[in-house]
Amino acid sequence: MVLAVTHDHAEDAIDVVAFDGDDTLWHNESIFSMTHERFAELMAPYVQVESIGERLLATEMRNLRLFGYGVKSFMLSMIETAIELSRGKVTAAEVQAIIEAGRSMLEHPVELLDGAEDAIRSVSEHHRVMLITKGDLFDQESKLARSGLGDHFDAVEIVATKDERAYRRIMNRHGADPRRFVMIGNSPRSDIVPVLDLGGWAIHVPHPLTWAHERIEDEGEMAARERFRLAASLDEVPAVIADLRA
Amino acid sequence: MVLAVTHDHAEDAIDVVAFDGDDTLWHNESIFSMTHERFAELMAPYVQVESIGERLLATEMRNLRLFGYGVKSFMLSMIETAIELSRGKVTAAEVQAIIEAGRSMLEHPVELLDGAEDAIRSVSEHHRVMLITKGDLFDQESKLARSGLGDHFDAVEIVATKDERAYRRIMNRHGADPRRFVMIGNSPRSDIVPVLDLGGWAIHVPHPLTWAHERIEDEGEMAARERFRLAASLDEVPAVIADLRA
Repeated sequence: MVLAVTHDHAEDAIDVVAFDGDDTLWHNESIFSMTHERFAELMAPYVQVESIGERLLATEMRNLRLFGYGVKSFMLSMIETAIELSRGKVTAAEVQAIIEAGRSMLEHPVELLDGAEDAIRSVSEHHRVMLITKGDLFDQESKLARSGLGDHFDAVEIVATKDERAYRRIMNRHGADPRRFVMIGNSPRSDIVPVLDLGGWAIHVPHPLTWAHERIEDEGEMAARERFRLAASLDEVPAVIADLRA
Repeated sequence: MVLAVTHDHAEDAIDVVAFDGDDTLWHNESIFSMTHERFAELMAPYVQVESIGERLLATEMRNLRLFGYGVKSFMLSMIETAIELSRGKVTAAEVQAIIEAGRSMLEHPVELLDGAEDAIRSVSEHHRVMLITKGDLFDQESKLARSGLGDHFDAVEIVATKDERAYRRIMNRHGADPRRFVMIGNSPRSDIVPVLDLGGWAIHVPHPLTWAHERIEDEGEMAARERFRLAASLDEVPAVIADLRA
């Protein structure tokens, strides 16, 4: 996608505003939660329900390096966890049920968070607007298409991991100065910290369901940083941005 | 990645040369073939070996719309096919063996095709050079990093599907005129036809192992098109490009 729109602004004003996708603009973790419940049901004959979530997370973390993020990785980690938890007794029908649960996730309608479209529209009146989302390319493209938000973005970047290196590459690619760049998202680890570390601005819009892996230990320290801002919801985002000065 | 290098050229000269990755610059299908063999071994107790490949391809095609390309999709399709072929009798240990076979694919060393590095180096003396590869973002980034070729490219584009729309978006993004754009690859469906359809040049470097899905019915018609060229190997590519005139 091309950055066709450029805005004329003072040197010190915000130039690029980037939104995260999952659990910032559209619901995601709720679909994973639903599937966690289904998985726990399937595993109930084999094991104490309490231990299931922890074991699944451990498998996901072990597989992350090789599989990356996304629903297909999650499906494979569920299958491996089922084999472990059942001590090799899980049946083919149960494995198939896990695959079907994953398929339902991929087919699930994309539901926007309240205020998503208004926030993007409002911000795009004064700034270049970008989507920066991570995970499975195929799945993220599909979600973006189904979200109906595609036309609002001047650029879309789907990356495997949202770290400092990825953000620096995106900023270079689009000629964006970090001091005039704002990232908006729910994940301290992926949306906030790496952008602050690059000298950019970050607006944290917390989501009640945020995957354990996306949290960081010291969110207090993060919140105390100069270019950190908090917004209770997307509705507050345009006003928060209007108050930023590079 | 940024297009840092621009070359001064006449209006009618080739500007951008893009290479495909899998089975154009590095081996890929051979790793799938190895896994097909392992899968056939695992399925041998349940079913006639001859029918296995066909059934697996049918599952892959059915899942393509929802899962996309790549090793994780292939792993899930192998598991589903195993459940079908065994009529639900496949064991947890066999499912685990399928996952291990997939894991080996992801960990397999990236082996360059003969002449890959020389061809890119030679072409980059006179043109902008790009990698355009499709499939799983995480897996492709990992393969590019392990290939050692990353620094040779002025830009890298990883896409979910290589169709006309994807190529048009890439050309727009990099300000590339299709008439001055050449795509090099082994897949008629993904590398050659969509680029010719956009008015660009395409150099087909056939690979002995090319996935059935990447073939097209009428390769003769393709080969007769004005901006189609054939190269027996990557070694021939620089000379073929030097002969092109927009």
